[in-house]
Amino acid sequence: MLAVIEALGVLAFALSGALLGARRGFDVVGIVVLAALTAMGGGVLRDVLLGDTPPAAFREWPYFAAPIVAAAVTLLFHPAIERQLRTVLVLDAAGLGLFCVAGTVKALDHGLDVLPAAALGVTTGVGGGILRDVVARETPVIVSADSELYAIPAAAGALVVAGAWHLDLYAPVLGPVVAAAIFAVRLVALRRGWRAPSAQTLARRRDG
Amino acid sequence: MLAVIEALGVLAFALSGALLGARRGFDVVGIVVLAALTAMGGGVLRDVLLGDTPPAAFREWPYFAAPIVAAAVTLLFHPAIERQLRTVLVLDAAGLGLFCVAGTVKALDHGLDVLPAAALGVTTGVGGGILRDVVARETPVIVSADSELYAIPAAAGALVVAGAWHLDLYAPVLGPVVAAAIFAVRLVALRRGWRAPSAQTLARRRDG
Amino acid sequence: MLAVIEALGVLAFALSGALLGARRGFDVVGIVVLAALTAMGGGVLRDVLLGDTPPAAFREWPYFAAPIVAAAVTLLFHPAIERQLRTVLVLDAAGLGLFCVAGTVKALDHGLDVLPAAALGVTTGVGGGILRDVVARETPVIVSADSELYAIPAAAGALVVAGAWHLDLYAPVLGPVVAAAIFAVRLVALRRGWRAPSAQTLARRRDG
Repeated sequence: MLAVIEALGVLAFALSGALLGARRGFDVVGIVVLAALTAMGGGVLRDVLLGDTPPAAFREWPYFAAPIVAAAVTLLFHPAIERQLRTVLVLDAAGLGLFCVAGTVKALDHGLDVLPAAALGVTTGVGGGILRDVVARETPVIVSADSELYAIPAAAGALVVAGAWHLDLYAPVLGPVVAAAIFAVRLVALRRGWRAPSAQTLARRRDG
Repeated sequence: MLAVIEALGVLAFALSGALLGARRGFDVVGIVVLAALTAMGGGVLRDVLLGDTPPAAFREWPYFAAPIVAAAVTLLFHPAIERQLRTVLVLDAAGLGLFCVAGTVKALDHGLDVLPAAALGVTTGVGGGILRDVVARETPVIVSADSELYAIPAAAGALVVAGAWHLDLYAPVLGPVVAAAIFAVRLVALRRGWRAPSAQTLARRRDG
Repeated sequence: MLAVIEALGVLAFALSGALLGARRGFDVVGIVVLAALTAMGGGVLRDVLLGDTPPAAFREWPYFAAPIVAAAVTLLFHPAIERQLRTVLVLDAAGLGLFCVAGTVKALDHGLDVLPAAALGVTTGVGGGILRDVVARETPVIVSADSELYAIPAAAGALVVAGAWHLDLYAPVLGPVVAAAIFAVRLVALRRGWRAPSAQTLARRRDG
């Protein structure tokens, strides 16, 4: 079942890349490139940083199938898919939770300390989206003050996993629970429009 | 002879980077940085992803000589070089074919499957150009719907090489033949203005 | 003492990232991400290219503390910190010298030749700033014709270190001396407004 959710998460990441490519007027190649960068980027960054090469994404077929399926679906049903953006965001949130937890656990397995392991877990979850936005010349969603909480629930979840591991409190059940919590907080943030503060909002709050 | 073509390909990649830097008004450092990123980027990405470090480009002198020569030529003869853009594009197409095939073969040698090996081969051919465009804040040529076929002949060629390898049909002569075919298709695409479709052109074709 | 200067250099890099994030109106996450990219980017690129993974920055706490401290200081004292920009530039110049020399020595230790080792040293010094500017969608300071000499003193210093090493003239005292020289040249360039020429300024000088 976890494998099914992971495949759906990869597909959601790929779809978010393909949709951005279509919206920017890129050609077929651009749409496939953005879909692949988004789907594989986070995991590839994690594996290169851990020295586990070639990256797992180059050895598992869903990572190659997803960008192609996402590009085909986007090219064939472009305006209709655009209307399903909310579905894509929900799947993307599921992927965020899973990849973040899986990345943290893999980093801990490689002997990293609490903070570095959590940072690598967050990188796994958000790295693909950063690469997508950089290549498409968009302000990365993750740094923008206009976007709902994304990295913060991921970082909190990664710290819980890494902290439990180092306190010898980690149990296999913790992974899915934390992934589900990241997923849930991201969904509520999307619905309620929760945003992280910027230097400007903090200054205004201080002055006013 | 292959070594001469490869050196010319590296030089063409470096020139395309140096020219873009000059056109954007960058200083000497910027021109060298863009030339080096374009010349070395694809091969470095390939070697880092395969875990073959330090990358070959850090061990072979043409990769270091090319950016310096390209920057010097560009700075000394800037407007004249600009008029030779077509020559640069022809050399660049030769480099694309060679690097794409060489990257695919190296990935197969490292035990990668058909699709991942082909993807890594294409990355070797186009990765430097993507890095060049990202640092120069241009929409990457490879994703833009305004640019002639570039990645598609490269991907087709890489798939032929990787497929032949896995079917035990690979012979050393296949490499140069496929590289020449990629080169030829790219040249014809440039002359005829062949472009890949975007989501917009496909939608128009469906509706109209 | 070198460790103190290095920690201050990391903090200066992190502050330059955090300040850019605040100026661009990014949220807390964006400010931390830019601070971390700037502080860790150069060293991480060097270690990934040398195959020394996980990168040293993932094993040493100042690299994790600096982005968090920089983000907190920036969020709490944003307009005041902005007025200390000159202090940040001075610390950044110290970091540039140190990281450039340390990166060159590490690359020589891994057996790289003169030019590749110097290139990797410069990458260590300037890589974080390039990543910072790419993610923040700024023209990288290092390529822009509007910015004072930055990479040129770094490259000259790295070549001196790498050359001395290969001529068996390297002594441990050379490192700090070269780092101090890079620091000094950068400070004078800032004060006097020294800039590297672009293709345009060279063409004007030829014609005029």
